Amino acid sequence: MAAIVERRLFGPGPTNPYPEATAGLARPLLGHLDPVFVAMMDETCDRLRTVWGTANTRTLPLSATGSAGMEAAFVNTVHPGDVVVVAVNGLFGQRMCEVAARCGAEVVAVEHPWGTPLDPERVVAAHPSPAIVAAVHAETSTGVRSDIAALGAAVRDAGDALLLVDAVTSIGGIELRADDWGIDIGYAGTQKCLGVAPGLAPFTISDRAFARRVERPRSWYLDLGLLGGYVGEAGATGAAGRTYHHTAPTAMVSSLHAGLGRILDEGLEAVWARHAAAGQALQDGLEARGLELFAAAGARLPELTTVRVPGGVDSAAVRRALLERYDIEIGAGAGEFASTVWRIGLMGPNASPASVALLLAALDDVLG
Amino acid sequence: MAAIVERRLFGPGPTNPYPEATAGLARPLLGHLDPVFVAMMDETCDRLRTVWGTANTRTLPLSATGSAGMEAAFVNTVHPGDVVVVAVNGLFGQRMCEVAARCGAEVVAVEHPWGTPLDPERVVAAHPSPAIVAAVHAETSTGVRSDIAALGAAVRDAGDALLLVDAVTSIGGIELRADDWGIDIGYAGTQKCLGVAPGLAPFTISDRAFARRVERPRSWYLDLGLLGGYVGEAGATGAAGRTYHHTAPTAMVSSLHAGLGRILDEGLEAVWARHAAAGQALQDGLEARGLELFAAAGARLPELTTVRVPGGVDSAAVRRALLERYDIEIGAGAGEFASTVWRIGLMGPNASPASVALLLAALDDVLG
Repeated sequence: MAAIVERRLFGPGPTNPYPEATAGLARPLLGHLDPVFVAMMDETCDRLRTVWGTANTRTLPLSATGSAGMEAAFVNTVHPGDVVVVAVNGLFGQRMCEVAARCGAEVVAVEHPWGTPLDPERVVAAHPSPAIVAAVHAETSTGVRSDIAALGAAVRDAGDALLLVDAVTSIGGIELRADDWGIDIGYAGTQKCLGVAPGLAPFTISDRAFARRVERPRSWYLDLGLLGGYVGEAGATGAAGRTYHHTAPTAMVSSLHAGLGRILDEGLEAVWARHAAAGQALQDGLEARGLELFAAAGARLPELTTVRVPGGVDSAAVRRALLERYDIEIGAGAGEFASTVWRIGLMGPNASPASVALLLAALDDVLG
Repeated sequence: MAAIVERRLFGPGPTNPYPEATAGLARPLLGHLDPVFVAMMDETCDRLRTVWGTANTRTLPLSATGSAGMEAAFVNTVHPGDVVVVAVNGLFGQRMCEVAARCGAEVVAVEHPWGTPLDPERVVAAHPSPAIVAAVHAETSTGVRSDIAALGAAVRDAGDALLLVDAVTSIGGIELRADDWGIDIGYAGTQKCLGVAPGLAPFTISDRAFARRVERPRSWYLDLGLLGGYVGEAGATGAAGRTYHHTAPTAMVSSLHAGLGRILDEGLEAVWARHAAAGQALQDGLEARGLELFAAAGARLPELTTVRVPGGVDSAAVRRALLERYDIEIGAGAGEFASTVWRIGLMGPNASPASVALLLAALDDVLG
């Protein structure tokens, strides 16, 4: 058998998991109807409510990766012909347009330059009465944070559209307050700031969005109407209260449960502060070396830094050298910036002074 | 923190994982574009080809549970109005009808009594020119094995319909020869006889089925046209050859890779023989105690035994006592047999003389 490599995952995700999350994966497996698992699932949903900043009953980990969370968000809420306004400032906004269109939406894309945050006024002005306004909180492709609180206020002022938000790269890393900001439908991933392996999509939907849902969506697997019983919606307790829908990925749920426990033990605001400090230290260090940050000043994510590849430097060669010499993974850019930008993530347990120090030292070596 | 319980998972799935699979889960996490992970994914797909009995290029682990495999099978192959004949002899045949209908199929359900295998002649006679004929190889709800080789021959004789097969509870436990039997589209789960935690759906599709696929299916997440690049279809090697589609659940893939390695080291036919021996020993032991098996003689799955609850016995109380006294999980019946049948699985590492001995001794105690 080949040697087992141990990487420092400083790319745009997955990150290295919290040790508690790894222990949760390897814990003796439970059946999905075991009363111990049922209690663990209930507690996991409670913990997810805390990191989402929501009281939504329908808050649960979907049994697939974050991209399936996006699909669940649209497939359950887009009725044929609905107007969906999508704020696009990167790859994941583009993907929202594609997924919404496949669900039968009339998509109105509001394009912004990559590297800049969305403009709430432009988004709201794009259509007088959309059914849904959709946006990405933290664009993984560009390292940009958008102001969802401002967007939520603008959407509410303009009418009664539902607000649908991608929180894949924000949840557990920066401030996220779904209820305060008016998020009706939110999806995320486990493999970024939550510090858990990829494989689940934390999801939340408000009562008002659920009331407008598609009754029999094209997807059976992601049908929120059927999934309610699966997690014991409305306070049902004990295995007797569960409807079998599909076999829950129990090892992944156990890992998420443990990872969230670690975050809440540290304190959610303390975790945000740790991400903020690590990101700032990295960005300061890069600029001190004469490197140019890509994301607009004032809208930079601490957990995901984008930096321009210096002129004359081979982007892929640097990434390869970091991997081979230091077991460090960083990401290429996305889309047209694939070879001109690097993406460097400091997420979950990697949001630490040690990660910043190691990464800057390794870059100093590799960039010569 | 509450004590960690360790269960013997003798229900209809999940089963206890092979130790190699658990070790694979806890292995240091890899990024989904890491060359080490890419090589592991390629090898996983190769190993899946062996357990499926197929040479199909498009053989891969989908990033969700077995039920999503069912959805992927239909969403990629059902064009609106297509006639889909479904052999129904249990819960999962019923579910196929629902999922196919949501994809726009005209469903022709061919009902069989629960506990009996499907009748290939009746299935083929149900419609003169279906686009797809669908069937469950091993019905998890009833413990019945159907003869897919005979169905495949009948379907080929009758026309050019595609054969779509659910192998969730058969793969890695009993004979399965996708290519020899004419299976065009197959999906499975990891948490049964493959002895891996739930969370992935091993999937295979033939070239001829892929050529007839839906070009832009309603599901983006499960779109096989997009997923080809994700696994390096057609022999592309190295990270440079991969198209980013979604973040692969790398811990689960690592676990599946290791579990499959264990099975192939033992030898696939030896693994089938081990399941056959354990199931026979259990079924003999149950009958020797005067208990009545539910599935029809000649069509009983060794990996999943269904047995009638004796008159006057409280089904749930027995299951609870097994769990509380022995940490043993067995399953209730499905559908109308929920309280009159038990489902007992001996899958993956649990297909062993030790499991049979423990289970029979515990039943002797609990049944008094």
